[in-house]
Amino acid sequence: MKKDVDAIVLMNAVEPNLDCSFFYATGIPNGLFEGCLAVIRPSGVEVLTSELEALSAKEAGVKTQVFENGDERMRLMKRRLSRFKRIGINSMELTLANHRLIKKACGKAKLVDISRDLFDARMIKQPDEITRISKACRIASEVGRSIPDFVSEGMLETEAAAEINYWMMRLGAAGPGFTTTAAFGTKSAEPHYTPSRRKLRKGNFALFDFGASFERYVSDMTRTFVCGTPSKRQMEMHEIVLRAQEEALDMIEEGVHGEDVDNAARNVIDGSKFKGCFIHSTGHGLGISVHDPGSISSARDMVLRKGMVLTVEPGAYIAGFGGVRIEDDVLVTKNGCKVLTACPKDLRRI
Amino acid sequence: MKKDVDAIVLMNAVEPNLDCSFFYATGIPNGLFEGCLAVIRPSGVEVLTSELEALSAKEAGVKTQVFENGDERMRLMKRRLSRFKRIGINSMELTLANHRLIKKACGKAKLVDISRDLFDARMIKQPDEITRISKACRIASEVGRSIPDFVSEGMLETEAAAEINYWMMRLGAAGPGFTTTAAFGTKSAEPHYTPSRRKLRKGNFALFDFGASFERYVSDMTRTFVCGTPSKRQMEMHEIVLRAQEEALDMIEEGVHGEDVDNAARNVIDGSKFKGCFIHSTGHGLGISVHDPGSISSARDMVLRKGMVLTVEPGAYIAGFGGVRIEDDVLVTKNGCKVLTACPKDLRRI
Repeated sequence: MKKDVDAIVLMNAVEPNLDCSFFYATGIPNGLFEGCLAVIRPSGVEVLTSELEALSAKEAGVKTQVFENGDERMRLMKRRLSRFKRIGINSMELTLANHRLIKKACGKAKLVDISRDLFDARMIKQPDEITRISKACRIASEVGRSIPDFVSEGMLETEAAAEINYWMMRLGAAGPGFTTTAAFGTKSAEPHYTPSRRKLRKGNFALFDFGASFERYVSDMTRTFVCGTPSKRQMEMHEIVLRAQEEALDMIEEGVHGEDVDNAARNVIDGSKFKGCFIHSTGHGLGISVHDPGSISSARDMVLRKGMVLTVEPGAYIAGFGGVRIEDDVLVTKNGCKVLTACPKDLRRI
Repeated sequence: MKKDVDAIVLMNAVEPNLDCSFFYATGIPNGLFEGCLAVIRPSGVEVLTSELEALSAKEAGVKTQVFENGDERMRLMKRRLSRFKRIGINSMELTLANHRLIKKACGKAKLVDISRDLFDARMIKQPDEITRISKACRIASEVGRSIPDFVSEGMLETEAAAEINYWMMRLGAAGPGFTTTAAFGTKSAEPHYTPSRRKLRKGNFALFDFGASFERYVSDMTRTFVCGTPSKRQMEMHEIVLRAQEEALDMIEEGVHGEDVDNAARNVIDGSKFKGCFIHSTGHGLGISVHDPGSISSARDMVLRKGMVLTVEPGAYIAGFGGVRIEDDVLVTKNGCKVLTACPKDLRRI
């Protein structure tokens, strides 16, 4: 906790607008906790919750106070917050409407935006977080290895994604960590594509972006295949993206700038015939959220530190032709990085 | 659009903190659009996006302007927003940090919270929205009907949830609409439980809460089973919850107060030996978000209107024993409601 606040208050709105830091701070494995608060003090964490989530909070051993409705919540908030002088809030995940409620409840206390410190803390993963992310990565990797066993020509994108989700859950995932992407043919050029009823045809790229959710922590990996025999251009595109990813992986270690890693990957692609086709940054943090704090990017540079978990995912995208992305999850170490997703990276055929 | 604003600006933060109204207003089927904006004027919608999502926006036929980084985004925002006098914002789904950016960009314009009007509009579903929700409901219902075919004694919660997700996607869902709950035994008493490696045992309740995502719209239904022969108490609990749900369904029609519907369901449970066990409200809106605007609740009363889509989901929960919930999705009509989820509601055995 930042030294100059008496408490930190995290408040969820309605799904999907939940504060991931709420779950980071409380460690509660079940429940949505819409409209609920966590009050964090050096002495411990207290959750203000509706009856709906009370059992989930209590089973996690968290100090819990139940409110029946909005008025009672405001009374509880006032009683707790008005005795503080400086209260930390998380501007990155707090809605404007909830900010108004906290302001109303806290009387004369000053609200201090501690999101930067909170995100800094969340970036460095604790051992138990690394254990959960690693498990989520092992599940995704095992499924990634067997994609050619269960995806075949003629299959729909939704069917392929269904298989991926199914096998991740059979291996212990609580669910997919995010909407699994299965993008065939030209659709592989849309990085955040949602699977539809498109059929896999000979000559298509087949891009799969997926991750497992395990005890609230997620993995996030991408592999790109070709149905049948790849064309020369498809092979070149895959080779360049793979080389870009290897350049990035080689550079990662404590103390290196994310911007430099991003540039290393980007230079490979921009130095090839696929110049300009790498339209996003090289990676992002991974943890409770699939887009956790931290990035490997020139737009949001940061120095890599031991204990960070990041994705490394260069890609090349050509509208009307298709796209290739190769994505792994890594743990930054003192002298390099540990790849948490173990799955072949050559251009495999379906 | 509210008459007294020149434009509405919707801005996403980082997943999961996305503004569902952004997707409602733009209708873009693919993409995450983190850090992106929609500027809505009577003359049309424009999206400011990073290159990453540009193709997804363009393929949807939406007017699109691409920015390369945060500075360029701010320049684009300033150019657009500074000419307005009054700008509508959505305080319910806008983060405090993004509010700060909009304030910086808009110069002397006044920011007006239009979230209530926006949510009012989102509550009444348009025909194409009803088509998509109905499809999502049909998918979930079909899977709900066949649960006893693929869930059996000894199965893990995650395995059962894997089957449900798999069959929803085989029937055309883009994915589960939210984390599928499979809660066995005493865990059925936790309404927002995440499936784990608990095995289904004889005598257990088996509660399944799941929904399909179809073209960004979702369904949300719950059925509770018993493994083997139900005990007298289990049968009584299920019977009371079912009666509560039927009372609620019978009351729903245009013009009725949500509070009265909630009371009708609650009175059945509170008039039984399960008094006090119904620990949440009777229902919520359903649409792009699984918790869309609107509710059937005494804490947040509203008058039901034709075109609303709502869940009807009374439940009873006893810690250490288990819970029952029966949930359907309905479309409010002039003289009643149309149940969109067609699936048996008797206490079925596994």
